[in-house]
Amino acid sequence: MNKSAILHSNCGTYAYAADEHTLCIRLRTARNDCKSVIVHYMNVYDHSKNRKKADMVKILQDEYFDLYEAKISLMARHFKYFFELESENEHFFYTSDGFMYNSVMNENSFFFPVINNDEIYSLPKWAEGAMIYQIFIDRFNSSCDKSFVNVNWNDIPERNHFFGGDFKGINDKLEYIQSLGTDIVYLSPVFSSVTNHKYDIEDYLSIDEMFGGRECLSELIQNIHKKGMRIVLDCVFNHMSSNNKIFLDVVEKGQDSQFKDWFYIHNYPVRIEKCNYDTFAGCVPTMPRINTSNQEVIDYLVGSAVYWTKELGIDGWRLDVADEVSVSLWRQFRTEILKANSEALIIGEIWNDASRWMNGDQIHTVTNYKYRKWLLDFIEGRIDTGIFWNKIASNNMLYKTMSYNYLVNLLGSHDTKRAASVIGKEKAILALLMTLSYQGIGLIYYGDEIGLLGAEDPDNRRTMPWDEISEVHISQYKQLALLKQKYSCLKSGQVKPVLDYKEIICFERTTPDQTIEVYVNFSDKDVEINDRKLLFHYPETRKVNTSINRIKAMSFAICIKN
Amino acid sequence: MNKSAILHSNCGTYAYAADEHTLCIRLRTARNDCKSVIVHYMNVYDHSKNRKKADMVKILQDEYFDLYEAKISLMARHFKYFFELESENEHFFYTSDGFMYNSVMNENSFFFPVINNDEIYSLPKWAEGAMIYQIFIDRFNSSCDKSFVNVNWNDIPERNHFFGGDFKGINDKLEYIQSLGTDIVYLSPVFSSVTNHKYDIEDYLSIDEMFGGRECLSELIQNIHKKGMRIVLDCVFNHMSSNNKIFLDVVEKGQDSQFKDWFYIHNYPVRIEKCNYDTFAGCVPTMPRINTSNQEVIDYLVGSAVYWTKELGIDGWRLDVADEVSVSLWRQFRTEILKANSEALIIGEIWNDASRWMNGDQIHTVTNYKYRKWLLDFIEGRIDTGIFWNKIASNNMLYKTMSYNYLVNLLGSHDTKRAASVIGKEKAILALLMTLSYQGIGLIYYGDEIGLLGAEDPDNRRTMPWDEISEVHISQYKQLALLKQKYSCLKSGQVKPVLDYKEIICFERTTPDQTIEVYVNFSDKDVEINDRKLLFHYPETRKVNTSINRIKAMSFAICIKN
Repeated sequence: MNKSAILHSNCGTYAYAADEHTLCIRLRTARNDCKSVIVHYMNVYDHSKNRKKADMVKILQDEYFDLYEAKISLMARHFKYFFELESENEHFFYTSDGFMYNSVMNENSFFFPVINNDEIYSLPKWAEGAMIYQIFIDRFNSSCDKSFVNVNWNDIPERNHFFGGDFKGINDKLEYIQSLGTDIVYLSPVFSSVTNHKYDIEDYLSIDEMFGGRECLSELIQNIHKKGMRIVLDCVFNHMSSNNKIFLDVVEKGQDSQFKDWFYIHNYPVRIEKCNYDTFAGCVPTMPRINTSNQEVIDYLVGSAVYWTKELGIDGWRLDVADEVSVSLWRQFRTEILKANSEALIIGEIWNDASRWMNGDQIHTVTNYKYRKWLLDFIEGRIDTGIFWNKIASNNMLYKTMSYNYLVNLLGSHDTKRAASVIGKEKAILALLMTLSYQGIGLIYYGDEIGLLGAEDPDNRRTMPWDEISEVHISQYKQLALLKQKYSCLKSGQVKPVLDYKEIICFERTTPDQTIEVYVNFSDKDVEINDRKLLFHYPETRKVNTSINRIKAMSFAICIKN
Repeated sequence: MNKSAILHSNCGTYAYAADEHTLCIRLRTARNDCKSVIVHYMNVYDHSKNRKKADMVKILQDEYFDLYEAKISLMARHFKYFFELESENEHFFYTSDGFMYNSVMNENSFFFPVINNDEIYSLPKWAEGAMIYQIFIDRFNSSCDKSFVNVNWNDIPERNHFFGGDFKGINDKLEYIQSLGTDIVYLSPVFSSVTNHKYDIEDYLSIDEMFGGRECLSELIQNIHKKGMRIVLDCVFNHMSSNNKIFLDVVEKGQDSQFKDWFYIHNYPVRIEKCNYDTFAGCVPTMPRINTSNQEVIDYLVGSAVYWTKELGIDGWRLDVADEVSVSLWRQFRTEILKANSEALIIGEIWNDASRWMNGDQIHTVTNYKYRKWLLDFIEGRIDTGIFWNKIASNNMLYKTMSYNYLVNLLGSHDTKRAASVIGKEKAILALLMTLSYQGIGLIYYGDEIGLLGAEDPDNRRTMPWDEISEVHISQYKQLALLKQKYSCLKSGQVKPVLDYKEIICFERTTPDQTIEVYVNFSDKDVEINDRKLLFHYPETRKVNTSINRIKAMSFAICIKN
């Protein structure tokens, strides 16, 4: 065996508490290197040799590695454990003191000394496999004429355009939003700011009047709740507007300002035209970066989010630039927000390996942009299905299995080109259906459901062409939502890649008592498959509940074994 | 190359902030697999190809792996980076998106999005390479007769013996303690308790009267400080005495007690004879385990430590059973204690891989019992020097390089057999001299300096035989302390194993401008070495500042190249 490939650690994704008495334990080996892996475990304070055993299951495989996992339980909560590995011609133990070939002494074990309640990994059950509809407020729907609007609704947006979308406009479209299968409405920032995007907040404690103000937002949220949906707001703590009174105080008073340590000031006097302070994204003078290691700052910002969580009944927060805000802030944020709403969902905007922030003390889940990368790479022909699944597995290996049905999978956002502008509208719709059938929380960036075009910002923030949208454009989402209600494995099941078909993406969603298959053919050729019963097809050219043995070019199907 | 052996992660020991602008970056490869490793890095917000480069240095090697390290600095604090590896016949890049063979795009990088101030890894400079003298108070020195003493000073201890050691007794021996080279006096628990060890505290807010009470402790600490030494107290937060009023309240009032959630109660009424609650070490009814995830508990316990830190001028804490107390408690502990004394040192009692607790938000350092294990295994002939150094390297790989001169290396404690009872007095003294010359904080468990015997608890807590101790027994420690003052590399230098001599342990301590060699011969044969100038020898049979080319059987030498 390739011993250098074997990896375990007594923390992170390799050992964590799934509940008061249960550890989830992982071991990594080289790919196809091992016949079986067993974990031997016992109470730390048991000095006998009465060890328990559990078979470890191979849950993931990528180009180089196999990942094994087991759950082990002890009423006593104190764990010591080691591994037994077997290949065709080798047999040994892997312990904290290295490899052993005959027997293992208890003190050679790995130790997870105790499960303390504060370290139990937990996620809000309601959000498992949910669907998020992301709305960029200024561009979604406008309820009335407004004096600040400086462009026609159907124009292509430029950076300083205001289209007049508002809370009431969203409220008017709640039925549409829900009909797509939406569980969570996620709004771009709602706090006072003079820009159209409002990612530069002037006042964390007031709701923007251009969008309709506090009363309108409150009414919108009540209606979202009445429909059984949830509301997630955007939380922008990495930077604020240079017009925020807090920053202006530093501009005005310099070193005498009580807020001087709220920022990273290079020298005084502070001048916006000199940009002599840290900002968002290197140098954006209108967005001074906040010193989120400062406890006063933490109390103020977290306090604001707690206030709105309680006042408006917020169900969750999407954390802007989550990976640049301090760990101290997010720890306090999680603690305080969950005190205000124990069911709240916390989503970090992180584009890369987010495992550092996913250890149970900060964010619940993350914008899984790597899913977007590998899927677009596949659809554009840069990688084949084998590499696609390997890369997806490598990415999953970074995270705890418990979180897989919470990873926020997205094909685009207000920060990327829209999928339809990358791969064309037809494939973008197929990819969206796949995303909504895949593990995790599928996200629809408003308009992606109809294949709205959009190059880089600001083009990716076009208005919804309501005149052009009719039932026929969205019926597939309604049907898929109904199917997900009927087959819970489409929400909570694991994903198992099916590698039988090289040309198409095929995977199972499985729970212990259900298995559904999903087929996506992005190619221009039909592909033969084994006989299956069709449950869902897009485009709607084929009758459900009939047998099929072919996935047509440019089509999407959900099937079940006959 | 063995690609499955290559490991990096954007957190933990593999990527952490050494200061505001500097990251310490590691990469692991298979042993002797690589000719060179380079890290390419740039500002996250730089979208050019103007990357900086740094050569990575091989800092550790164990049986399976080489560990490479580099420090990289950017004024902007935002890092993205990837690795370039070269072997005899291969050349490739290692990125967040996998291995690449031609070029790398910026977005394939690993990301360390920003260095926030709260995550900068820091350690109290004064403690680097310090020496700790650990005192078990009841057994060290008694200043006067006491009514509760139930045994003669020179008797072999049994579990319930009280010998009458006290604060004043320690005070009377401060000159002796300092003459050993002691920087830090670490006392067994001082808070009110009826046992001789006081690891079951009855009142966290009062100092034990059997030891002399608060005034005597305060005077002792003042005198320790006057001599330029520091004081570390034992912090016992995992469990308390079943006679503590807090626990008694639960025994008395059951579910109506305001403290019922301070423990892990199985059922009511709580009865000590039934032991129907979680305890220390499985089942020790007199030591109920505390629920340290409870915020009220955290505030109370941390509050007590902060109080004493300020009141008595405490320089550090040794955290008993640190790996079973909650992470939430230790995070608040570190924050609050460092507010009370920014220079305080926090040492966790952890016997195994402690890396989980060493990420900069909890403990500074740890009782490095694995050092004891591998050194005793070597001395007793179970492993050879090659395996010894491999195992030491494997253990070091768990920790950040910055912490190596803070790891608390010990040959024994009140919880283990004494070294002299395992390997004999002569070898135990050699091992102690080695420990005090090795990297890290060397710990002397009182009496080990004279080879005091002691099997398992309670035998390992014998009294100091003051009548038998004279200058001749401790002069080697005085001389070594003087040498460490002269050659700072013996305190702050890195350790580099010298593998030229199979029969003896030999290592260098090096700083950029100094290199000293340490030789320890535990065998009964002399060993030839290259010509060296002798700086220190034990036993004192050889003249310093002369040339030597032989390390005699059962001897210890510190040399410098001629």
